[in-house]
Amino acid sequence: MVPMPFNTTHDPARRSWIESANAAATDFPLQNLPYGVFRSGENLTPRIGVAIGDQILNLATAAELDLLPAAARTACRQPSLNALMATGPGKWTELRARLSEMLGVDSCPVRLRAQIEHCLVPQAGITMLLPAHIGGYTDFYASIFHATNVGKMLRPDQPLLPNYKWVPIGYHGRSSSIVASGTPVRRPHGQSKAPDAPAPVFGPCKNLDYELELGAFVGPGNRQGEPVPLAAAAGHLFGVVLLNDWSARDIQAWEYQPLGPFLAKNFATTISPWVVTLEALAPFRVPAFARLPGDPAPLPYLADPADTALGGLDLTLEVWLLTQKMRQAGIGPHRLSSGNFSTMYWTLAQLLTHHTSNGCNLQPGDLLGSGTVSGEAKESRGSLLELTMRGTEPLHLPGGEERKFLQDGDEVILRGHAERPGARRIGLGECRGVVLPAAS
Amino acid sequence: MVPMPFNTTHDPARRSWIESANAAATDFPLQNLPYGVFRSGENLTPRIGVAIGDQILNLATAAELDLLPAAARTACRQPSLNALMATGPGKWTELRARLSEMLGVDSCPVRLRAQIEHCLVPQAGITMLLPAHIGGYTDFYASIFHATNVGKMLRPDQPLLPNYKWVPIGYHGRSSSIVASGTPVRRPHGQSKAPDAPAPVFGPCKNLDYELELGAFVGPGNRQGEPVPLAAAAGHLFGVVLLNDWSARDIQAWEYQPLGPFLAKNFATTISPWVVTLEALAPFRVPAFARLPGDPAPLPYLADPADTALGGLDLTLEVWLLTQKMRQAGIGPHRLSSGNFSTMYWTLAQLLTHHTSNGCNLQPGDLLGSGTVSGEAKESRGSLLELTMRGTEPLHLPGGEERKFLQDGDEVILRGHAERPGARRIGLGECRGVVLPAAS
Repeated sequence: MVPMPFNTTHDPARRSWIESANAAATDFPLQNLPYGVFRSGENLTPRIGVAIGDQILNLATAAELDLLPAAARTACRQPSLNALMATGPGKWTELRARLSEMLGVDSCPVRLRAQIEHCLVPQAGITMLLPAHIGGYTDFYASIFHATNVGKMLRPDQPLLPNYKWVPIGYHGRSSSIVASGTPVRRPHGQSKAPDAPAPVFGPCKNLDYELELGAFVGPGNRQGEPVPLAAAAGHLFGVVLLNDWSARDIQAWEYQPLGPFLAKNFATTISPWVVTLEALAPFRVPAFARLPGDPAPLPYLADPADTALGGLDLTLEVWLLTQKMRQAGIGPHRLSSGNFSTMYWTLAQLLTHHTSNGCNLQPGDLLGSGTVSGEAKESRGSLLELTMRGTEPLHLPGGEERKFLQDGDEVILRGHAERPGARRIGLGECRGVVLPAAS
Repeated sequence: MVPMPFNTTHDPARRSWIESANAAATDFPLQNLPYGVFRSGENLTPRIGVAIGDQILNLATAAELDLLPAAARTACRQPSLNALMATGPGKWTELRARLSEMLGVDSCPVRLRAQIEHCLVPQAGITMLLPAHIGGYTDFYASIFHATNVGKMLRPDQPLLPNYKWVPIGYHGRSSSIVASGTPVRRPHGQSKAPDAPAPVFGPCKNLDYELELGAFVGPGNRQGEPVPLAAAAGHLFGVVLLNDWSARDIQAWEYQPLGPFLAKNFATTISPWVVTLEALAPFRVPAFARLPGDPAPLPYLADPADTALGGLDLTLEVWLLTQKMRQAGIGPHRLSSGNFSTMYWTLAQLLTHHTSNGCNLQPGDLLGSGTVSGEAKESRGSLLELTMRGTEPLHLPGGEERKFLQDGDEVILRGHAERPGARRIGLGECRGVVLPAAS
């Protein structure tokens, strides 16, 4: 995988004439330019926008005013990002360059400034929707630390199954229940069985959990029967979001054999609204995870020197929790964990290539979940299952509460950002969801 | 689940003025009226049609000529069945009654006959497409005989896992690679590992198999967070097709732990083009499979007296094979197996209710695969894996060939029909697919 080259859009010295985009702490400086779909109070039609500081550049309006490259105009007037995702890397780069020029303080043509201002919408008060129609959603299991942590609980002698270091393990998830950040998530009912119980019971999930993941949106698809070689995978990856793979652990433990997770996961998956492009993340490319001594090399179809050299992403990913009691006491969200995406055993390109290696056809807007992002250190574990060792080591929260698993009213907040010397810090925004009580 | 009542559309004495629909062997008599989507040479726009004998009634034309109930007109002019599926049982019954009247020899109003004839297209020479946009595809594992046969190969001491008799086991499949009958299927590449090999290899699948299944199309969906009770499930099930869940057994064995089948299945799934409605199948309702002495009763959310009484379907399902050599020698397809859907451990209604029991939202056009339909007898096993005991007992074919698994050029043909005293025999048509050699 050959990552996209740096260009002027990545220059950390460049500033926007939208002042909020120049704040040190913003997730959305001029160097980010993530895409999303929003709806404002006055206009119910979903529109594509680009986040810039605390504003949104309405791309539908910009297209109508003829401010965008000709090739992007139709795609930018759609109610979802699928068409833009389908246009491919050349068109993405062209559009990004144009947006960066329009929003840069030194590059924006003076005569256009008023027109561009006309396209701005404050982020406050608008509703963010799902960024794309997600036809297929696949969830992987690409953190060897997560796989090991979970495996240890089930098989202390052999935490990792023999296929793990060869096969990027994944399974199909449910796309219909993927929801936008901010959508409350109802605690599901389901079957579970205590180890010593003679029979299962059906009732509200007792061990509700989150999983911290990165989601990658597919750009151009591939035809059925035509695999995407690893060297071409970058051209099929559009951008990333934060993803919370809500998990009902008690339901999962009882149902998952032999065909994998099903109702334990498909009641809801939450994603963050702003798709940060892989082009924006180019400065944060790092080598793929260094395999441990004795680990096998990837099979040839999963091996490419460029991917080994720069297939990793140095992205800090965090989980924060805000309980109802903390909210009532005026206590802010508490950080539960912080990990880094560079610790993943498989790169995004390897996941995509593996997925298509049998000829399976991906389509623009398909979503690939990375699997829980957990690192080696305890503070980098991306689920409560791992942080509390299946509830045996409860977490202590500010305000005096304890948590083994999620309780009703808990809000889970995922955050992510990339930060390196010589580059402008960019963020992924937030992925939030409050747990509602089970239906009566 | 309350099955739809019999009505005049089921009357076995009724005949059509389309003579081919009165032939004893036709799958599509007046009592069937299955829906499909076709494209004819002269018109590239996909159209909804109803199979009647060797003809298709073009519903788009019928709607334009004002021959259909007002409520069905818009849905019948769409390029897929999704809108019709969404209209629900009341509208389905109304449309079926009207079609039955139009096509019946004694019921067709004379003044309309010429107009209806104008809507007919011969089935010969047209292309059948996928009947619906399939947003979500879920595959179950509802035959206890299949689960036992497969389990025996992996765990001779404990073929059935402890959850089997409690949980309708299922997992998400890949909707993008579902293809219409007649589409050739390319042998996939993938990782596999021989038991005694130190490492896996990547190459063409060696153990390619089919699985005989029934697929059920979802009608009206349910909102996220709102389960469908078993008593209401019938109203969410539109109709059924034959489904071939192509399976790469060597890839499956190596990849499936711990998250289930993935690349072993998602390269292709083939379905038959004509959706036979559950209303057409009403005369073939039978009691749900009788649980064995000592088996637990279903948990209350999966128990309903009406479903127990009539949740089963007496449908004969067959697999036929036609190899390249047989084709060249002028030998016709050879029947490999014949089973019956009434042997399934879980009813279609139980599968749908279980799927939504955690609040997972289904949508019109979603497809639920039953899992391999295998009965108790050896001749009713619905996969080569089971028929040949993982290749250890090859099948002998007319013409002298043997088969452990599928070879290039093999055509797998699924057929199905329902037949009972006092009812007109109806058929499901065919689900066909030829195996192409792996890409070089």
